[in-house]
Amino acid sequence: MLHFEIRKPDDGIRLLLQEKIDNLTKPKGALGVLEELALQIGWIQQTPEPKLSNPCHIVFAGDHGIAAEGVSASPQEITYQMVANIREGGAGINFLARQHHFDLMLVDAGVNYDFKPDKRVVDMKIRKGTRNCLNEAAMTQDEMELAIQRGAACTQVCYDKGCNVIGFGEMGITNTSSSALWMAYLTGIPLEKCIGAGCDHTGTIVNHKYEVLKQVMSNYKGDASVTDVMRYFGGYEMVMATGAMLKAAELQTVILIDGFIMTNCVLMASRLYPEILNFCIFGHLSDETGHKLLLDYLGVKPILNLGLRLGEGTGALCAYPVVDSAVRMINEMNTFKSVQVTKYF
Amino acid sequence: MLHFEIRKPDDGIRLLLQEKIDNLTKPKGALGVLEELALQIGWIQQTPEPKLSNPCHIVFAGDHGIAAEGVSASPQEITYQMVANIREGGAGINFLARQHHFDLMLVDAGVNYDFKPDKRVVDMKIRKGTRNCLNEAAMTQDEMELAIQRGAACTQVCYDKGCNVIGFGEMGITNTSSSALWMAYLTGIPLEKCIGAGCDHTGTIVNHKYEVLKQVMSNYKGDASVTDVMRYFGGYEMVMATGAMLKAAELQTVILIDGFIMTNCVLMASRLYPEILNFCIFGHLSDETGHKLLLDYLGVKPILNLGLRLGEGTGALCAYPVVDSAVRMINEMNTFKSVQVTKYF
Repeated sequence: MLHFEIRKPDDGIRLLLQEKIDNLTKPKGALGVLEELALQIGWIQQTPEPKLSNPCHIVFAGDHGIAAEGVSASPQEITYQMVANIREGGAGINFLARQHHFDLMLVDAGVNYDFKPDKRVVDMKIRKGTRNCLNEAAMTQDEMELAIQRGAACTQVCYDKGCNVIGFGEMGITNTSSSALWMAYLTGIPLEKCIGAGCDHTGTIVNHKYEVLKQVMSNYKGDASVTDVMRYFGGYEMVMATGAMLKAAELQTVILIDGFIMTNCVLMASRLYPEILNFCIFGHLSDETGHKLLLDYLGVKPILNLGLRLGEGTGALCAYPVVDSAVRMINEMNTFKSVQVTKYF
Repeated sequence: MLHFEIRKPDDGIRLLLQEKIDNLTKPKGALGVLEELALQIGWIQQTPEPKLSNPCHIVFAGDHGIAAEGVSASPQEITYQMVANIREGGAGINFLARQHHFDLMLVDAGVNYDFKPDKRVVDMKIRKGTRNCLNEAAMTQDEMELAIQRGAACTQVCYDKGCNVIGFGEMGITNTSSSALWMAYLTGIPLEKCIGAGCDHTGTIVNHKYEVLKQVMSNYKGDASVTDVMRYFGGYEMVMATGAMLKAAELQTVILIDGFIMTNCVLMASRLYPEILNFCIFGHLSDETGHKLLLDYLGVKPILNLGLRLGEGTGALCAYPVVDSAVRMINEMNTFKSVQVTKYF
């Protein structure tokens, strides 16, 4: 399996960063989250003058065999239709990418559809959807390794364009189910607390979803190791995102995390390489049940709470201006030393 | 006193707006706060294709006679020093205005300092600080009316430049005290719940502040009418902001509200013209005790909660990208009719 070199940034610079932040012309701590983010980004980049350059956002799309069990209120065809919609620029993630000047990379990780070749959809397809994990592993070991490798390659493409901040999002009908299974196995939190309604807020599906996923867990005879959980229940888009995040951490880029599904990919990645968490910024608290529990489990706080439950990375990109503000703050504000302002409270 | 014509936007368009939002290619409601904001702005502008143009932000600065009682941890000189800092572009509000392309208008409403003439500081000074409301009214009836008129004039300047969205912020040492008094009188919420530590998070000041403000209320012999409360306890920067907001509502612009002090100006304005609330977007939940109570009292929800407690309008401007996103969403997303996507949940 692909190996990553992920190192915790050197703590030596933290004191210098905190001192710089505390000497900006404002009461100590008065810019709240902006100050925390400036510290984190300066630490990641190992400089008191951090910069964000060429932001990229990657959307991984894939289908899930478990969809056959009716665990989602939406039909599987939505996945390929929405990929086409993102390709044409008309989805939620598109206006956000334009607004915040992100290069958008749309990746077919394993959609159950034959797209015509188009440079706007990066073909990383492993297979036309995973297998149904009610009966068998969603993917083989080889497929999982290939997905990690291809995810890492996507990040490398962004990095080679001069990008040092990457957002991650997904499109995949039923992937809240796969995410709930990852979460239940990796955290030990009971399944019923890990599942939510997905995009269906009518509430009709959630009981059925719980019964099916309980059966999935009861049928599973694997060893519950991290990689076995990853391949048995994962989606190609989720494993690819995990690989992409690991590569991003190796390259010391800032990682912008979306909602429930992407947070589960961080969880998975952090089980392989715990230091990845140092590079992650969590954009948004999703409406999806379980997301808050998972964020608490990871000990992290999201920047926004806007009631989003769309996926695609919308929660990551909505948070970007706050991240940008943090970097501008530490670079652009005057200090008490540079101007005549009495230090105040 | 200056009269304003503030009309509630026509409700006739709301159904059309909601229908348009519900037909964008996303599950119904899945863009949360963005959908609510798009509805509000389309309603204010009476169009399914709302636009935000030439955003302006006004910072009103003023000093307070009550500062003599030691109710703030910071000395009064901070007000003029920070006005100079904003003028030179090095304060918190400056990098946010640059980031989000706001024209920044810095207004001396009543700072206790003689600034040299400079086109970057709009001279609307009523007096070098208010009187001490422990002993007498902070301002005369004439001064209050002049402040409202000058505030309205500031908004008119923005509007004449083609602006249809205005942020409001302030700089004024001790103005959390004046705000707490407005809040206590206008809402009936007990004083101790209306006061907080201001910018001082050491906690040493807050008890003394409470004792002084209790004495202020006990000394007050006025009729507790809206305008008497405004002039007796208000700051020039607060009354000017109130006038500016009323004018903005009259001109049907979108109004971006900062934290505790600006929310108190909305409270005051809404007591004179309740329909102003339709035009207001609340940017940020301040760390200042009392702000949450006041927002609940007004029945409104802020967009962000970033732990900011700086003032200047930083909370309003940090929220602007979300407002901008909402407008982009309703204009730029494909609809289920325009592309081949099955309506999903």
